[in-house]
Amino acid sequence: MAYYETMFDQLDVTAAQLLVNDSSFRDKEFRKQLNETVKSMLDLRVIPIFNENDAISTRRAPYQDSSGIFWDNDSLAALLALELKADLLILLSDVEGLYTGPPSDPNSKLIHTFIKEKHQDEITFGDKSRLGRGGMTAKVKAAVNAAYAGIPVIITSGYAAENIDKVLRGLRVGTLFHQDARLWAPITDSTARDMAVAARESSRKLQALSSEDRKQILYSIADALEANEKTIRAENELDVATAQEAGLEESLVARLVMTPAKISSLAGSVRKLADMEDPIGRVLKKTEVADGLVLEKTSSPLGVLLIVFESRPDALVQIASLAIRSGNGLLLKGGKEARRSNAILHKVITDAIPETVGGKLIGLVTSREEIPDLLKLDDVIDLVIPRGSNQLVSQIKNTTKIPVLGHADGICHVYVDKACNVDMAKRIVSDAKLDYPAACNAMETLLVHKDLEQNAVLNELIFALQSNGVTLYGGPKASKILNLPEARSFNHEYCSKACTVEVVEDVYGAIDHIHRHGSAHTDCIVTEDPEVAELFLRQVDSAAVFHNASTRFSDGFRFGLGAEVGISTGRIHARGPVGVEGLLTTRWIMRGKGQVVDGDNGIAYTHQDIPIQA
Amino acid sequence: MAYYETMFDQLDVTAAQLLVNDSSFRDKEFRKQLNETVKSMLDLRVIPIFNENDAISTRRAPYQDSSGIFWDNDSLAALLALELKADLLILLSDVEGLYTGPPSDPNSKLIHTFIKEKHQDEITFGDKSRLGRGGMTAKVKAAVNAAYAGIPVIITSGYAAENIDKVLRGLRVGTLFHQDARLWAPITDSTARDMAVAARESSRKLQALSSEDRKQILYSIADALEANEKTIRAENELDVATAQEAGLEESLVARLVMTPAKISSLAGSVRKLADMEDPIGRVLKKTEVADGLVLEKTSSPLGVLLIVFESRPDALVQIASLAIRSGNGLLLKGGKEARRSNAILHKVITDAIPETVGGKLIGLVTSREEIPDLLKLDDVIDLVIPRGSNQLVSQIKNTTKIPVLGHADGICHVYVDKACNVDMAKRIVSDAKLDYPAACNAMETLLVHKDLEQNAVLNELIFALQSNGVTLYGGPKASKILNLPEARSFNHEYCSKACTVEVVEDVYGAIDHIHRHGSAHTDCIVTEDPEVAELFLRQVDSAAVFHNASTRFSDGFRFGLGAEVGISTGRIHARGPVGVEGLLTTRWIMRGKGQVVDGDNGIAYTHQDIPIQA
Repeated sequence: MAYYETMFDQLDVTAAQLLVNDSSFRDKEFRKQLNETVKSMLDLRVIPIFNENDAISTRRAPYQDSSGIFWDNDSLAALLALELKADLLILLSDVEGLYTGPPSDPNSKLIHTFIKEKHQDEITFGDKSRLGRGGMTAKVKAAVNAAYAGIPVIITSGYAAENIDKVLRGLRVGTLFHQDARLWAPITDSTARDMAVAARESSRKLQALSSEDRKQILYSIADALEANEKTIRAENELDVATAQEAGLEESLVARLVMTPAKISSLAGSVRKLADMEDPIGRVLKKTEVADGLVLEKTSSPLGVLLIVFESRPDALVQIASLAIRSGNGLLLKGGKEARRSNAILHKVITDAIPETVGGKLIGLVTSREEIPDLLKLDDVIDLVIPRGSNQLVSQIKNTTKIPVLGHADGICHVYVDKACNVDMAKRIVSDAKLDYPAACNAMETLLVHKDLEQNAVLNELIFALQSNGVTLYGGPKASKILNLPEARSFNHEYCSKACTVEVVEDVYGAIDHIHRHGSAHTDCIVTEDPEVAELFLRQVDSAAVFHNASTRFSDGFRFGLGAEVGISTGRIHARGPVGVEGLLTTRWIMRGKGQVVDGDNGIAYTHQDIPIQA
Repeated sequence: MAYYETMFDQLDVTAAQLLVNDSSFRDKEFRKQLNETVKSMLDLRVIPIFNENDAISTRRAPYQDSSGIFWDNDSLAALLALELKADLLILLSDVEGLYTGPPSDPNSKLIHTFIKEKHQDEITFGDKSRLGRGGMTAKVKAAVNAAYAGIPVIITSGYAAENIDKVLRGLRVGTLFHQDARLWAPITDSTARDMAVAARESSRKLQALSSEDRKQILYSIADALEANEKTIRAENELDVATAQEAGLEESLVARLVMTPAKISSLAGSVRKLADMEDPIGRVLKKTEVADGLVLEKTSSPLGVLLIVFESRPDALVQIASLAIRSGNGLLLKGGKEARRSNAILHKVITDAIPETVGGKLIGLVTSREEIPDLLKLDDVIDLVIPRGSNQLVSQIKNTTKIPVLGHADGICHVYVDKACNVDMAKRIVSDAKLDYPAACNAMETLLVHKDLEQNAVLNELIFALQSNGVTLYGGPKASKILNLPEARSFNHEYCSKACTVEVVEDVYGAIDHIHRHGSAHTDCIVTEDPEVAELFLRQVDSAAVFHNASTRFSDGFRFGLGAEVGISTGRIHARGPVGVEGLLTTRWIMRGKGQVVDGDNGIAYTHQDIPIQA
């Protein structure tokens, strides 16, 4: 106590000792009094320091219950936290927190979030802490009691002076005990790397299965989805209710809802994927390298995918089944709005995966704080696919060395040429902007050939958009001609019923504008002149280039790719709308009869293509 | 001077004024004395501060020559630097350095390295500096005089207190004048970004050409290589001489040499590439999406490539012609040993590219300091291909967000199964290690089935290697059985006549070992058991997996890919030995008749594959 006083004095803070007895807590009046006393002391900026009043204690053996009686300093602290309705209880130890085994054993891992159901039996407690009476067993018991009575508890090391500060700043320090932990952190005790490594190991087992066995897994998943319809809907309804309470936008809530029809349609699409030709091990190229030496280029799974998606829980089912079809391991991070739906869907799917593959093929990442850890694992994760806002995609692209498949921007152009069919131009321009204004393949900039100003076609196009409620902004030329407010930048994605208009010299001007200001997503020309069309199709360097068709067609399903993994504006690997092939790479398989290189002497290279049997 | 004294006093340093006259320098004795005086002062830690002795100066008009007479403080400084044989002269200005135009003009760019031949006529000098007598014109004149007399000069801003410190730490501050600048920094005045942007613009012009025109460019390059054989050899001989003087390893010098045969073979390979089927615009997939709506997936150039290669100058020709064939822009950085050879080869190739495409299609980066700048440009460079040491590749992979195609490690395994043909096993194992021990596809670890210990096959394999001078290290099992020194790690690439040996349980043990310790480059099984072979081929998850053939076949030329871009151990984009297809991406081209999406109403998706016409 003298030491506490000396230390607090340096901060000009007064500390006061309160010596209590276990028996005192039996008295209701004492408890009330205690609350008031502590409150008054805190108002006076006096720090109460509790300890057991050993001198008058009558206790013989330590109590082992939580009936309001304490049995050491840890349980005293838990008890006080409850009585005083503390916001947080911090228990300081001589180790970083609770480990899965003795902290001195290098195989022991720090548990970041304690989950009673999971950890209670799993943990091997070592010797008790060298300081004070209570060891880690006692601390955990106290922490569990307080946590499940509603007081969050953190056990952390008292040796690092900054730990308390870190805890208060919400950083991941020590071990957290919280009554809801089981709901929101089923995986945080396994490190990100462990998850990725386990997913890769399982994916290798999946790849070793026969094509028929992999197909069967998808059928089992489809059946399991239908069989668990009620459970899925029950969990989904909780998500929907939470979203409505939180005042989430109606359109977002609608995307969250899993109707029986949606579940059955999802099961149907999983079966469709199962019936698809096996994408793994397809021979893409076959060459006779030399007599009796045959080389094949075959399709092969990428390895481990990390997919970060927002809101819609059905995406989880689509992505998981795509990963299984393509033999990949998967780490999934869904939006928090769909937390319960994602958890149940993940469970239903994982339970349907046979033990020979293992339940860790698909890992569900539930806390946002895991993401930065996962993005660092460029040696064990092969591809990240973010499906969500531009901000999400950009943020991921900027923070990871893992290849990212996706698109941050969708600045799509429609160029209306002087040789256009005017009705067609109006139809395409309207559809490209209005069919779904917030989509990444919606038109953001309309480019019009200068000759269309004279014959009033420009005005017709403008009217077609404005009469449907589209707000228009002009480039330097168009804003003068049409008396429109000037667009702040041509590189702007509105994602709403708004777009930029500009007048260009000709098709070359349009191409130049698109190269300068586009995002290489999808661009379209409307013209009846086949030469101009081909010029545009050949020269515009975007992932998708259309002639006389709405930019809205730029989509995996509309392209006929089956399930869509995402749309990529990158140039490496897959580009544009990406189907299952974006989840595959290749391997070179060579079968010989003992051939050696030996300085390329004694081998006659033939390099003959061998036709691939269908 | 009083101000200098006050300032230096604070640092406990004494400063002393030396007032000199232009006429003093005519006296040889004065110059000798001056040297001794300054030396003594510096020994006493006294800072000499020179100024013109205006009071006794007889000069009327400023002198404009460099005969040893100064005409302002800048020329006085240059003169003193020469007389005192300074290591470096720093001229402080009120702007950051020398700009291409008036520093206030936003179009003016800071010149990092001044090249007399290039900049003398190009620069527009503005008003003279507001401080002191000498403007920028005077400074540049003084700097050029000192630099070409052997004293490096930097002009930088005197406003930033840390600039002198930065200059001394070798950071890129201000404008550097050096007599060799023209040799090693022909491009440093154009920023890295400008080079990349110019290469992309030129590549678009190249892509707009007909296939025949692109072919013709390659023919012109081949002709130019032969026509310029003498010049190329002359420059190459200078590189070779320098390398020999520097005591470079003989094998490295040999790789540097460009014989007439090599030049003619290079020209031949460029012509061969010209005759190859045009890789751009090939239709890879064709689908009828709906009636009258046809979708094509076509091959398309990546954009701009950055290739960093070491030593061999012929790589420059191969890479440049591959880039042209695939319609890509290119930035090249070669090794400094091949500086002159690379420069002349680059010039010969660039001169053969027609003006319609432009000379900036292929940029030659000559100074190492440009590389970090280039690696930051992930928005304008699409792919980096490092061809060189593991260290080079790792370093590049760790410092850039641009996708990297290549391999850092080549830890290749040969697994000899119990059912092997022993002679074949010895032949393959010897070739895999000895054909070229430093190659990335050479065997680093030999795995042997445990049954081969009993029948002495293990000993035969060991003898085959040891008798050819291979140093062997054993894993925990093999080191005991064979009494070998223990290998420090299984994840080790020797790159020399050394390798690790380990005994494994069976093919599963081998596969597990390879997944745990390999680099997914090339792995081989030697067995006569077709089932075991297929298991190995299917399950080993490496870029190349061989049955009964040496790992040394893992190579673009031996695979029959034509020119080799590199070997990739990544899983995204191309994998294993990569030919021209690694420099291509895809574009989706859609041709319609005015179709719109309109919520997918009124359109009947057919998604029929259309056969591709050859």
